[in-house]
Amino acid sequence: MVYTADWIVVQDDARTVVEHGALAVADGRVADVGPAAAVLARHPGEPVSALGEAAILPGLVDAHTHVPMSAMRGLAEDKELFAWLHEDVFPREARWEPRLLRAAAELSFAEMVRTGCTAFYDMYMLQENVFAAADAAGLRGVVGENVVRFFPQLGGATRDALFGRIRDNAAAWRGHPRLRGAVAPHAVYTTDPETLHACRDLADETGWLFGMHMSETRKETADCLAERGLRPIPYCDSLGILRADTALFHCVDVDDADLAILRGRGCTAVQNPASNMKLASGAAPVQRMLDAGVPVAIGTDGPASNNAQNMLRETWLAALLGKLSTGDPTALRAQTALDMATRGGAAAIGDPLAGRLEPGCHADFFALDLRGPGMLPVHDVVSSAVYSATGLENRLTVVAGRELYRDGEWLSIDVERVRASARQLRDWAR
Amino acid sequence: MVYTADWIVVQDDARTVVEHGALAVADGRVADVGPAAAVLARHPGEPVSALGEAAILPGLVDAHTHVPMSAMRGLAEDKELFAWLHEDVFPREARWEPRLLRAAAELSFAEMVRTGCTAFYDMYMLQENVFAAADAAGLRGVVGENVVRFFPQLGGATRDALFGRIRDNAAAWRGHPRLRGAVAPHAVYTTDPETLHACRDLADETGWLFGMHMSETRKETADCLAERGLRPIPYCDSLGILRADTALFHCVDVDDADLAILRGRGCTAVQNPASNMKLASGAAPVQRMLDAGVPVAIGTDGPASNNAQNMLRETWLAALLGKLSTGDPTALRAQTALDMATRGGAAAIGDPLAGRLEPGCHADFFALDLRGPGMLPVHDVVSSAVYSATGLENRLTVVAGRELYRDGEWLSIDVERVRASARQLRDWAR
Repeated sequence: MVYTADWIVVQDDARTVVEHGALAVADGRVADVGPAAAVLARHPGEPVSALGEAAILPGLVDAHTHVPMSAMRGLAEDKELFAWLHEDVFPREARWEPRLLRAAAELSFAEMVRTGCTAFYDMYMLQENVFAAADAAGLRGVVGENVVRFFPQLGGATRDALFGRIRDNAAAWRGHPRLRGAVAPHAVYTTDPETLHACRDLADETGWLFGMHMSETRKETADCLAERGLRPIPYCDSLGILRADTALFHCVDVDDADLAILRGRGCTAVQNPASNMKLASGAAPVQRMLDAGVPVAIGTDGPASNNAQNMLRETWLAALLGKLSTGDPTALRAQTALDMATRGGAAAIGDPLAGRLEPGCHADFFALDLRGPGMLPVHDVVSSAVYSATGLENRLTVVAGRELYRDGEWLSIDVERVRASARQLRDWAR
Repeated sequence: MVYTADWIVVQDDARTVVEHGALAVADGRVADVGPAAAVLARHPGEPVSALGEAAILPGLVDAHTHVPMSAMRGLAEDKELFAWLHEDVFPREARWEPRLLRAAAELSFAEMVRTGCTAFYDMYMLQENVFAAADAAGLRGVVGENVVRFFPQLGGATRDALFGRIRDNAAAWRGHPRLRGAVAPHAVYTTDPETLHACRDLADETGWLFGMHMSETRKETADCLAERGLRPIPYCDSLGILRADTALFHCVDVDDADLAILRGRGCTAVQNPASNMKLASGAAPVQRMLDAGVPVAIGTDGPASNNAQNMLRETWLAALLGKLSTGDPTALRAQTALDMATRGGAAAIGDPLAGRLEPGCHADFFALDLRGPGMLPVHDVVSSAVYSATGLENRLTVVAGRELYRDGEWLSIDVERVRASARQLRDWAR
């Protein structure tokens, strides 16, 4: 199949933007990209999907989310984090049923597919449900199983039981073309050194990635200093658990020494601007991270604290927050924000074939409709995507060459079933 | 006509939210609102528009915008304000043609109507074009004519010429059911005391409102202190120009003494979160304003610096910025943000019948579709509107009882003409 559009944002190293471009797809990969006339001449007889006044961009990566928490979207707002967790979230999480958990994941995937997100890095419990929902939805992603030092928890009544489940999931999903697991210890304040070592060993054993919430608040730093004598990142580094397979979520309260460690170990930092603003945690020093050579991705933190999984909205917010927090309107440019949402996301999920549309890369992309009054005129299509789009301008989502959404139709997800299960989830959460 | 929907957010003093509600409209006003069964029983034989899984809310008010600047949306990004104005904006503004200026206003109005904005407070030049476009579009609003001390300018080659135009516009549009003018001196740093006095006198003479950019940056404060010996708000107050008819745009760098003046004079403050973040101006102390009893509205600052006129996106950002800037997640609650976008906007445009849906108020409203995965489930419809919606969920916009947009169709604006003129505007701006 060859897709043509007024604009193609390739996100290659040169940041090529093709006007009147075409993208040829074969076997789930990008086969060719460039000016439409040339690409069409090189692929005679291929079926053509002409998108017209639209911009094709690499699929966005939601590099930190908790997809089953869609059930709790909007449930309890404008509260302190601790009160929200203990009064609202934890009591409901204690009574999850796997059927509902999978339905909540499917609801999130329907939102992602709608808004041009093609890949995700999830962190939750009982993750066989998220694996199954993501497999069916056709998305790419990393499915992280949350680990804390307290048992019993939802993922297993003992650590042996939980780790057994992780091993089972690793065996069941090994070699999947789009999905991969992660061992995801929750945070420094919900684990101990022994748990963290065990998680690192399990990641190495299973070949899964490794991810953690890290340095989300100043309180986390202060508590870690008091309890462990080190800030969270040096503490984790002292345990030897930080590697190039590691994504660290939030990274709001980080100093230059922390960033030097991340750079040295090859970790990816994942900022979550909406959640960090809504919970008043602060702003990750993203421009400083980038200047220090740390790969940075963007995540929504999931629909409970966001309250969306809309990566275009999040990318816009990342740019604005980067300017506000530095006092510099030239910081965090539109192109930089888009880079984080695409190429940075690819780093977070450990997939160098994601986040760009060069030949050989995954055919993961979306197409923004540029015909709405809010998108006109187009002076710079990257600016249009980052600063003007809401996310719902998306009219086509493709993962591994498969169309998952087109013009109001979900092609891999039964959206009527999603709507019905959303009513069940609402009643369950009440 | 009676509109029914799963939710009606009335925005009366009690902040009533009606589940399974109905809203009856007659003669451009709200005739009745309440539970559907009761309203329908009181209005037998009226035609019914059943919106189903939707939320009806009072129309949003974009309380500070520059609608003709849609032509420059995305033109030059990530620049310092001064460089952007002098290199990009001013050279283009010097060559406006009235025909294009009106087309650019119409483009903005198409975006507003699409995203549930029913009223606006504009500030620009040659405003007979914006009057005409707003009249045709069916929107409610205040059309402010920009005044500076430098002549010649676009609005008139001399101040007498400009003031003559304002008087002509005041005469031409006097008594319009939806539109009103404003005399809008640009800012303290582009005017002098004599100009400001003359603007105040002209507002009093014409019965127009009075609006100014105010305290947008720390530099503005420092310069005003150096030149006038007072901060911008005390300086303007010393001239006697601040009244209850006065809207002050931005108000980022304001202290408690400034707020006491605003409170005492009955002025409305209009925050512009996206523009203030994008230009790295800072965050207006909105919670402090509200605590001080100052009415606060929300504006987009127009499509050149925003880069949208999407008031739901702006309302969401206002809530998040209010939390981040205070470090308090319980500040700027969803309800407070919605209040600013509706009731606060009514204060800014000086229209007590806007911003709420009580009987007797303007029948100005919009209807959010709640069926998209990103809006499900609905635990609290105000949270859904403020924290989850992107703006494009809107499926119906009504002003003064007239439907301006419904389900993809613009009913007062020729959207194909808008698309064609957007191409002309792009070429003009290049």
